[in-house]
Amino acid sequence: MRQERTEPSGKPISGGLNYSPPPGLQQRSLGNMLLATEKLLLTRMLRAIGDPPVQIVLWNGLEISNHEGKKVARLIIRDHGALLKLVTDPELYFGELYSSQRIEVQGNFLDFLEAAYRALPLTRRGNFGKKLLSPLHDARRNTLPGSRRNIHHHYDIGNDFYRLWLDERMVYTCAYFPSPHASLEDAQLAKLDHVCRKLRLQPGEQVVEAGCGWGALALHMAKHYGVTVAAYNISTEQITFARQRAHAEGLDGQVEFIEDDYRNVRGEFDAFVSVGMLEHVGTDNYLELGAVIDRSLKDNGRGLIHTIGLNYPRPMDAWTERNIFPGACPPSLAQMMQIFEPFDFSVLDVENLRLHYARTLEHWLQRYENNIEHVTEMFDAKFARAWRLYLAGSLTAFKAGGMQLFQVSFARADQNQIPWTRQYLYEPATPGGSNGKL
Amino acid sequence: MRQERTEPSGKPISGGLNYSPPPGLQQRSLGNMLLATEKLLLTRMLRAIGDPPVQIVLWNGLEISNHEGKKVARLIIRDHGALLKLVTDPELYFGELYSSQRIEVQGNFLDFLEAAYRALPLTRRGNFGKKLLSPLHDARRNTLPGSRRNIHHHYDIGNDFYRLWLDERMVYTCAYFPSPHASLEDAQLAKLDHVCRKLRLQPGEQVVEAGCGWGALALHMAKHYGVTVAAYNISTEQITFARQRAHAEGLDGQVEFIEDDYRNVRGEFDAFVSVGMLEHVGTDNYLELGAVIDRSLKDNGRGLIHTIGLNYPRPMDAWTERNIFPGACPPSLAQMMQIFEPFDFSVLDVENLRLHYARTLEHWLQRYENNIEHVTEMFDAKFARAWRLYLAGSLTAFKAGGMQLFQVSFARADQNQIPWTRQYLYEPATPGGSNGKL
Repeated sequence: MRQERTEPSGKPISGGLNYSPPPGLQQRSLGNMLLATEKLLLTRMLRAIGDPPVQIVLWNGLEISNHEGKKVARLIIRDHGALLKLVTDPELYFGELYSSQRIEVQGNFLDFLEAAYRALPLTRRGNFGKKLLSPLHDARRNTLPGSRRNIHHHYDIGNDFYRLWLDERMVYTCAYFPSPHASLEDAQLAKLDHVCRKLRLQPGEQVVEAGCGWGALALHMAKHYGVTVAAYNISTEQITFARQRAHAEGLDGQVEFIEDDYRNVRGEFDAFVSVGMLEHVGTDNYLELGAVIDRSLKDNGRGLIHTIGLNYPRPMDAWTERNIFPGACPPSLAQMMQIFEPFDFSVLDVENLRLHYARTLEHWLQRYENNIEHVTEMFDAKFARAWRLYLAGSLTAFKAGGMQLFQVSFARADQNQIPWTRQYLYEPATPGGSNGKL
Repeated sequence: MRQERTEPSGKPISGGLNYSPPPGLQQRSLGNMLLATEKLLLTRMLRAIGDPPVQIVLWNGLEISNHEGKKVARLIIRDHGALLKLVTDPELYFGELYSSQRIEVQGNFLDFLEAAYRALPLTRRGNFGKKLLSPLHDARRNTLPGSRRNIHHHYDIGNDFYRLWLDERMVYTCAYFPSPHASLEDAQLAKLDHVCRKLRLQPGEQVVEAGCGWGALALHMAKHYGVTVAAYNISTEQITFARQRAHAEGLDGQVEFIEDDYRNVRGEFDAFVSVGMLEHVGTDNYLELGAVIDRSLKDNGRGLIHTIGLNYPRPMDAWTERNIFPGACPPSLAQMMQIFEPFDFSVLDVENLRLHYARTLEHWLQRYENNIEHVTEMFDAKFARAWRLYLAGSLTAFKAGGMQLFQVSFARADQNQIPWTRQYLYEPATPGGSNGKL
């Protein structure tokens, strides 16, 4: 355990705690004026972020909070520069300062994030950093080489790192928990099946997968539904890993892992599936994605896109976009429709699995915390804290309703071989068997 | 039975049938030149509508078809003016000419409509008459008095008329057939339950219904789910009928039928529901509808909108808009999102029940045909044929994928009392009981 780690206490901290002044406070020569300025800055910052019920403690021992009642946590600000940055743009700089240990959270980190998130005025949840973001976003546009750079940044940081906290199948997307108490392993398996059943896969069919991660879905479809799969991904590390798995499982004749962009998909398929790629596509490219799907699907073709989404369009928060997910841009449902409407696809079913992503992230975060010393060894403390914040912050956003998880099923407009009801999705699993078709 | 009724043969008619020239053909003085002009006009018209496999027969016995193979039906054009109108704008004038018996269909009417619909180039399905439609649409805008006029046109033509072909509960929206073989009565009951379960109604809750038709859903919710309902409608005949039913069933203390516009909804509710009203709202008013929902829903509020929809935005066909449904404008899913996105509502579930509407319309059309003599007596032959075409044409559009039926469930963004999965919708019905909440 490292000294700077937050101990989740699980209990809210009540106000009025005594905090012994640190050594730096001996030099009180600047006196009350400095304290007054700091107080003003802090009050302004708290107001700017919606007055969350937290206690703020400065490097010099000064404490402040805008609430009389219970505080969910204490935010320690360790230097004057950190305070200035937080006051200038709390949403943008929080991540950087937290990662570099210039600020610290005492108390339950998740409670703190949730309180801060819920206190934020609606219009600013995620709207922050818009000006900062737009030039950045331009530089990181998802052109063919741009996408490759962006994907490399996130997914090629080492399979060993992801193995520390993902499930055994290495599925890095929202799981589907038949019950909230299911294990992560079972829930990821249930998700793969849920997707396959929605696609109504039949043995011998051909499937194209756009953005296949480490290959878990492609291999599952081939093994349990008897289909052949062309699986595309531009992450070198993931493709290499997926090919090894296919070979080890004797499925390399049935699944082809292709290191290429979704825009270069060639061939005609019975089903198109994409799980967790759309976040990286960018709305500017939705028309082209729709055209790719349109030219790839046979007349009886159907498809499913599984993606993080939003209730209304706004850019990813600036810190995450800059540090974790360059080029990422989850869509609203209206934005997603730009893929389907120009090509007369029928949207048959939309399922919002937001709370399942919160549950998935609880599992990931727990496993991550259990392995944070390994992460620190593999990278450094800054990286380890940045990813903790990213996982915890994402959990908070899904739990508080700031992010959604959409599974959208679609088919060609004139295709009547579609399920009569969705009942079949909720009957005992029979992979490759009855699938609700008329 | 009236002479002009089409006898559904159920079998396609093969080409090359002999057709005895009608008496008018005796005067052949204009000779071959007129025939050549007519041939040219017909060929152009057939090409314009995508060369459907139909045989065309003129008043003078001239027959023409662009296909060598089987014809699904014969279209009889009874005078020269009808031919000119069809050539000018087939989609716009077909309805008028069919209603006034200036054209007739021999063979299976539904097969004819489906062949014509499927032959139509994608870009023209419903795009026809755009220019004609826009000024018309303006005149029929869904302002408060405009809506009242438009709704009166369609719904106040007599409860006795609708009783001839609707189910016993008088539900004039898409039913939900647990199996395609369910009766219309069972399927409408199942639809009411499907909606109530999606809303997760609890005894004692308060529900607002926008556009309540003859009151079937409001009464069902009150009777079987123990809620109180404020049900709005601007159709005088429907409201009067609904109030009588409420009184007869002893539910008038629990259900208030209010003759007013959805824009005048007042109060706070646990659930907002609207089944088959959005078609009449018009996209210009979606922001206001969203605001009405936003101010009407409590924090734990949730809602459902059930509406005819489209795969991409386009106006209603001009004939239907002019003759059957003034002001009607079914939305695409992206357009629907204009209701939810500005208010940060979470869309939780979208179900497309297109084939259920086709099945519903099969039942309605069958009952309508069984009662067409009554309809003719109540109105006249033109009205009876217009409504036959409207029902059959709608059936065709739902079957061929030109129209959709969306049920969209939503809740406030930060509301976590939402169903964990949709499994509960597919378990045996327990009205007012377990509803999938965590």
